[in-house]
Amino acid sequence: MSLDLINYNNAVFRDYAFWMAILVIKTLAMGPLTGRQRHKSKIFANAEDAKRVGGSVKFDNDDVERVRRAHRNDLENILPFAIIGFLYVLTQPSEVLANLLFKITAISRIVHTVLYLRSSPSRGIAFMVPLAISLYMAIAVLCYFY
Amino acid sequence: MSLDLINYNNAVFRDYAFWMAILVIKTLAMGPLTGRQRHKSKIFANAEDAKRVGGSVKFDNDDVERVRRAHRNDLENILPFAIIGFLYVLTQPSEVLANLLFKITAISRIVHTVLYLRSSPSRGIAFMVPLAISLYMAIAVLCYFY
Amino acid sequence: MSLDLINYNNAVFRDYAFWMAILVIKTLAMGPLTGRQRHKSKIFANAEDAKRVGGSVKFDNDDVERVRRAHRNDLENILPFAIIGFLYVLTQPSEVLANLLFKITAISRIVHTVLYLRSSPSRGIAFMVPLAISLYMAIAVLCYFY
Repeated sequence: MSLDLINYNNAVFRDYAFWMAILVIKTLAMGPLTGRQRHKSKIFANAEDAKRVGGSVKFDNDDVERVRRAHRNDLENILPFAIIGFLYVLTQPSEVLANLLFKITAISRIVHTVLYLRSSPSRGIAFMVPLAISLYMAIAVLCYFY
Repeated sequence: MSLDLINYNNAVFRDYAFWMAILVIKTLAMGPLTGRQRHKSKIFANAEDAKRVGGSVKFDNDDVERVRRAHRNDLENILPFAIIGFLYVLTQPSEVLANLLFKITAISRIVHTVLYLRSSPSRGIAFMVPLAISLYMAIAVLCYFY
Repeated sequence: MSLDLINYNNAVFRDYAFWMAILVIKTLAMGPLTGRQRHKSKIFANAEDAKRVGGSVKFDNDDVERVRRAHRNDLENILPFAIIGFLYVLTQPSEVLANLLFKITAISRIVHTVLYLRSSPSRGIAFMVPLAISLYMAIAVLCYFY
């Protein structure tokens, strides 16, 4: 059995690459989204930015800080998922299961951001599901590579 | 000599995958740990969260912010280590050395969190050792792939 | 055509590994740089750190917070680039183009930090160029692995 798993020929890796690209776009979009909120509310983190548009420097505008919190939550969860998802591909999991886990994680994280930005109190579930999946993958990786 | 290094057959990669899974679990644990501190002190970042349990929105609770600082320190150090450790595997290092460096990094980062949460002034060493290892690996990668 | 792309024999991967190691060193340098600013201004985030050098705990020192903002910006942009750049290598892009994109991203991100720390209002371009490249790579990955 070939162990050359990191390429187009491995369906599990194709799924990983596809959903990971979606999540990278989703995460990168938070930067411009923060910028948009800053320009809307004319609240900036740097004096040189505020000066350009006649805004002010503040760190307590909830519209801006909310996007930043959602962004940080992405860094805390999507980036570790990228690592553990990659290692999980190498454990040669069932294609059906792996595809499902990648898809659920990606969609949940998008839903998480939408709920966070809408101040929905139910974003917790969209946080917990991908976290549980990442932990499951971590345990699968530990068992396989031990 | 085969250069197919990213799979179970490569002992250096097996070590990387094992310790990286440990570090992913350790990093992901900081999220629920922050949540626990928030519920203990009833201090939240979002009005909708505070409302649910009759808490308040504050950003200066040291018990909560300390966990968040330790978490951010993980993002700043463990995630770059994941990248450079992976590239280091591909430089075909000595198995003994690589295993040692992965193990020391993983254990140091766990110790770092424990010391941080206990407000120990000596967490510095547990920060410096993995940093030095990551820099060493980065230089090894530069020399190999230049 | 061989699909064993993650090793020294693939010139595109060699370029990725080289520039990624540069960016890891650049990102890791922000930690000690924050430490230097903290010791200069004697402003710390933890009481136990402040105590050691007779400093104080504050979160509004702009010299310290500016380095921290530049650092966070690295996490938000360089880490997703590491993921999408890796997946982009696997799409078997033109070597000339890939080399150019990796090099421009790495240099832009270094310039971004320099401009940020100098309070230059023109850091925006050094932020936008790598962001556009990452998004281009994400789309290339989506098209290839769909």
